[in-house]
Amino acid sequence: MVEGLVTRMSGTRANSVVFSDAERKAVYRAIFERRDVRSQFLPDPIPDPVLGRILQAAHHAPSVGFMQPWDFILISDTDLRRVIRENFVDANRLAAEQYRGEQRVLYDHLKLEGILEAPVNLCVTCDHSRSLGSGLGRHSAPDTDLYSTVCAVQNLWLAARAESLGVGWVSILDNNRLRAVLGIPPQVSPVAYLCVGYVSEFLPAPELQEKGWCRRESLAGLLHFERWGSQDEARAALLASPMGKHL
Amino acid sequence: MVEGLVTRMSGTRANSVVFSDAERKAVYRAIFERRDVRSQFLPDPIPDPVLGRILQAAHHAPSVGFMQPWDFILISDTDLRRVIRENFVDANRLAAEQYRGEQRVLYDHLKLEGILEAPVNLCVTCDHSRSLGSGLGRHSAPDTDLYSTVCAVQNLWLAARAESLGVGWVSILDNNRLRAVLGIPPQVSPVAYLCVGYVSEFLPAPELQEKGWCRRESLAGLLHFERWGSQDEARAALLASPMGKHL
Repeated sequence: MVEGLVTRMSGTRANSVVFSDAERKAVYRAIFERRDVRSQFLPDPIPDPVLGRILQAAHHAPSVGFMQPWDFILISDTDLRRVIRENFVDANRLAAEQYRGEQRVLYDHLKLEGILEAPVNLCVTCDHSRSLGSGLGRHSAPDTDLYSTVCAVQNLWLAARAESLGVGWVSILDNNRLRAVLGIPPQVSPVAYLCVGYVSEFLPAPELQEKGWCRRESLAGLLHFERWGSQDEARAALLASPMGKHL
Repeated sequence: MVEGLVTRMSGTRANSVVFSDAERKAVYRAIFERRDVRSQFLPDPIPDPVLGRILQAAHHAPSVGFMQPWDFILISDTDLRRVIRENFVDANRLAAEQYRGEQRVLYDHLKLEGILEAPVNLCVTCDHSRSLGSGLGRHSAPDTDLYSTVCAVQNLWLAARAESLGVGWVSILDNNRLRAVLGIPPQVSPVAYLCVGYVSEFLPAPELQEKGWCRRESLAGLLHFERWGSQDEARAALLASPMGKHL
């Protein structure tokens, strides 16, 4: 495959552009084996060099106008995490009221956070007032600062998988209470509250799928050609075919 | 390092949890060598199996409640891309008016999109009405559907780097005009407009840094401990130290 690429490109690209087959597969491994972890955290501490690497990965995310709007609050204090877990418990009680019958029973049995089990919690924020980048790219799309921050989260999540660290994103929180307890100023938005730690295992499929909450959608049905709703079933089936035989 | 991890974990984790050193480095390579490409696109077509793989990578992003709110519009029609480039040109004229003096001169010399040079454009959208996941995780944080879509973009971006494909995110567009030309329905938001193609090179640093628009921030200054604004200079310096010596 690498040889094929180099040949096809007829020398227009330096070798260093190309990943080896093994490198390419490693990137897909991180992408496909990454999980949103809630139930499998181990208490083992994360060495600072490892934590530093996944933070560097986050910091090397793309950002609109190279704005780098992110900050990282590292939380390990147990009392503070207890307070934040109370926030989750209250928010989750409200959230549960949306569900009835069997779905409510299933919801109540889901574990949706690992705030106290994971040794490190990480609040990733977006500073809307950061002047780096001088607003480039945000005139027509102001929310791209938030999106840049999410790119940093995803970089961290994949680097964590490569470091055998699980990450769980806890969205069931009252953000105003989170702001208050962490002292986050008004021009800064908390974007992601993450639980990070080593794990006993990475589940073979997403936990919500394993527990019957919902299934993975077919990719083919999510592909549109040239315009929304314009289908090409044959090509969609080809593009969405399982990775194994092509990787 | 791998042996170290396995030993430290005292057999609590299966070997398959762990990435080899080479796999781990490959993931960081994708993260650190990924670029927002505007100027280096080649016209070479992208084979469908390769395009399929990066779309599968996107589709395996985390999503709130396993909602999978994304759709992908693949655009290659030249006339359609010309219309979208006109949208960019108009939006960029408005954006340029924010800058004065030397900064305006520099802005006007930046190349900020590769809509016509890249063989494939990809509009990644978020369907706010998608019922998968039954709203789990969105009661207290409704924007997490948008954030999930951005995670898909970042997965695609990193997979693309591993496939030697460059990706550029064009945010300087009037989204209402984009919606109209692509026929995107009201309950769906366009989140990212991406240009995708093989490249002549990946720049050693972000193009906006290379051209003097702005510099990379120091990671150490973006780290807070337990609460916003609570600094620990020594630990921050350790966490933010260059990757080379630890990787």
